[in-house]
Amino acid sequence: MTFEIKKTDGKARNCILNLPNGFVETPVFMPVGTQGTVKAMFTEKLDEIGFKIILANTYHMFLRPGCEVLDNFGGLNNFMQWDKPLLTDSGGFQIMSLSKLTKIENDGVYFKSHIDGKRFFLTPKLSMDIQNSIGSDIQMVLDQCVEYNTDEEKIKNAMSLSLKWAELSKKSFSKKNKRKLFGIVQGGINPDLRKHSAEETIKIGFDGYAIGGLAVGEGHKLMVQTLDNTIPFLPKNKPRYLMGVGTPLDLVESVRRGVDMFDCVMPTRAGRHGLAYTCNGNINIRNSKYSNDNKPIDPYSKCPITSKYSRAYLHHLFKAKELLGSMILTYINLRYYDDLMIKLRKAIRDQKYDEIANQIYEKWDKKENI
Amino acid sequence: MTFEIKKTDGKARNCILNLPNGFVETPVFMPVGTQGTVKAMFTEKLDEIGFKIILANTYHMFLRPGCEVLDNFGGLNNFMQWDKPLLTDSGGFQIMSLSKLTKIENDGVYFKSHIDGKRFFLTPKLSMDIQNSIGSDIQMVLDQCVEYNTDEEKIKNAMSLSLKWAELSKKSFSKKNKRKLFGIVQGGINPDLRKHSAEETIKIGFDGYAIGGLAVGEGHKLMVQTLDNTIPFLPKNKPRYLMGVGTPLDLVESVRRGVDMFDCVMPTRAGRHGLAYTCNGNINIRNSKYSNDNKPIDPYSKCPITSKYSRAYLHHLFKAKELLGSMILTYINLRYYDDLMIKLRKAIRDQKYDEIANQIYEKWDKKENI
Repeated sequence: MTFEIKKTDGKARNCILNLPNGFVETPVFMPVGTQGTVKAMFTEKLDEIGFKIILANTYHMFLRPGCEVLDNFGGLNNFMQWDKPLLTDSGGFQIMSLSKLTKIENDGVYFKSHIDGKRFFLTPKLSMDIQNSIGSDIQMVLDQCVEYNTDEEKIKNAMSLSLKWAELSKKSFSKKNKRKLFGIVQGGINPDLRKHSAEETIKIGFDGYAIGGLAVGEGHKLMVQTLDNTIPFLPKNKPRYLMGVGTPLDLVESVRRGVDMFDCVMPTRAGRHGLAYTCNGNINIRNSKYSNDNKPIDPYSKCPITSKYSRAYLHHLFKAKELLGSMILTYINLRYYDDLMIKLRKAIRDQKYDEIANQIYEKWDKKENI
Repeated sequence: MTFEIKKTDGKARNCILNLPNGFVETPVFMPVGTQGTVKAMFTEKLDEIGFKIILANTYHMFLRPGCEVLDNFGGLNNFMQWDKPLLTDSGGFQIMSLSKLTKIENDGVYFKSHIDGKRFFLTPKLSMDIQNSIGSDIQMVLDQCVEYNTDEEKIKNAMSLSLKWAELSKKSFSKKNKRKLFGIVQGGINPDLRKHSAEETIKIGFDGYAIGGLAVGEGHKLMVQTLDNTIPFLPKNKPRYLMGVGTPLDLVESVRRGVDMFDCVMPTRAGRHGLAYTCNGNINIRNSKYSNDNKPIDPYSKCPITSKYSRAYLHHLFKAKELLGSMILTYINLRYYDDLMIKLRKAIRDQKYDEIANQIYEKWDKKENI
């Protein structure tokens, strides 16, 4: 069995996802390894925390190191020395956000590399071919992403084009090694478009369904509303993946509504910039009030790394621009995210989701000066 | 016993140094932790490799985080979470190399912070007070460093001033916890000045003797010559520390002549810039010939990190400016340096120093395209 629901509490689900490179328990947060590395993290440290799946970006892997290298290594797992499941996006999102001079055609999208300006034409087939070279356990269909506040007509057209590309992606997808292909539901924040996109995507038929086009500036409230307008149209027996989300409270609300999978650069990016996640909210370690504070980042954390270093030392490392600061805070933040998911999974198993979610909110809101 | 010679082979010595925070076997290489962190290295990883002592820079620690913070933490060991011996320099060298507008007086040196331009007057007493706040196992007297190619008169004056400061440093040194104080022999590459400096420093009397003012541009040959002109005047029963040295072959030649301790930024700095040390010489991993090379950096290394990652992956990480590249190569280089010292210590114990040194040279010179 590929996907098994073990327990539910309301709409929240605790499931097992069986992938070529291992089992993944959901709800799960996937750290982002854009360029074939979760920034500032040894893969052993990801193991130590307990992550079972990470994400890589197809757009970046295609430009560097490229398919020739990936093929020579038999895929990204071997290249980066990560022996557990991998998920890859399709490259669509990065083309919108990173590359210059994109031009959308019916068959694909022209873009210029953000590295050297070289011109490429990304089609559904090419995206699947790259993901095949990467050899990821879960692969995504090519979709057209639009920004928040795009006009209705454009959102509708992008949704329709994405449906066409989803079909073409499925045709080019290599089922080798029982890899999985996920479709992506689009439609901005419009309930009718979301419903239509969900129904049409399901007609094509995929191993799982992603909700795309969120976390693009619409805010927490509209995001949650859109989940309420989308999830009811998704099949119960397939994994649901909310792309690019999000804050700890985004995750709590999305799991409550039945989302199984998440990825986001927040914990790693914030960590490199001196922002730490704790049960009591965020701490900006660069703040001078921490310069002689011998308490750990989070006195309540059971993580050995979180407990080991003082705020004063981390403050010092960031002031002195030392790499170790980014290394420690990245670890602390990823550990916080993983601990949060462990807590949510347990809450579902114990049928206490609302109670545990309320406790998380209370602590977060208190922002006590620990 | 503080310092015990276990075995000698020619002039090379295998000794045990008993310090407040632990034993150190010599000859030893000490990684440099300038700002209270060996750049890009978790302290656990230093332990994993097997380092028993590291160095920190007094000048940097004084400016940031400062003595107030260090005192609050009871010293640098606790602040940076390193439970083994520490050695600190006196700050003299950094004042020459880093700060602006230094002005030497008889009693000390005026300098402006390289961070914010704030003006300070570093005296032998202040240097010892800072090192006391750091709480290092081995502390160094304040000395005046001069560049290579300085005229004879200036070198002589700097040497004389350093002798005066050495005396003042000893007066201000806190013997708390059986910490050790080392004197520093100066005198450029002039044999007479070196002899005089050694004799006068010994008269003052220290727990160990450093050879300063080398590795400042004189080159390998003149450095080795100066060792030959200095070490005969140093007492046999005290540790000898060659400051700021050096390349792997510098270490081989210095150990052969009876040096016990070394520190150098080379392995860490080179690692952050993509240069890897191997038994067969250096590899610049940024070279495009490694872009699809699935061999490890050093196929003969027994280090699990060195064996784990391919040259192609490391090449990719450096091209993509990923922190993990610096993290891995720093580890690999420090491991190479530690392995080299283990090899030299064993060679002394086995009375095979010349044979093993020749083997190291042969491999290094071959630079075979591994």
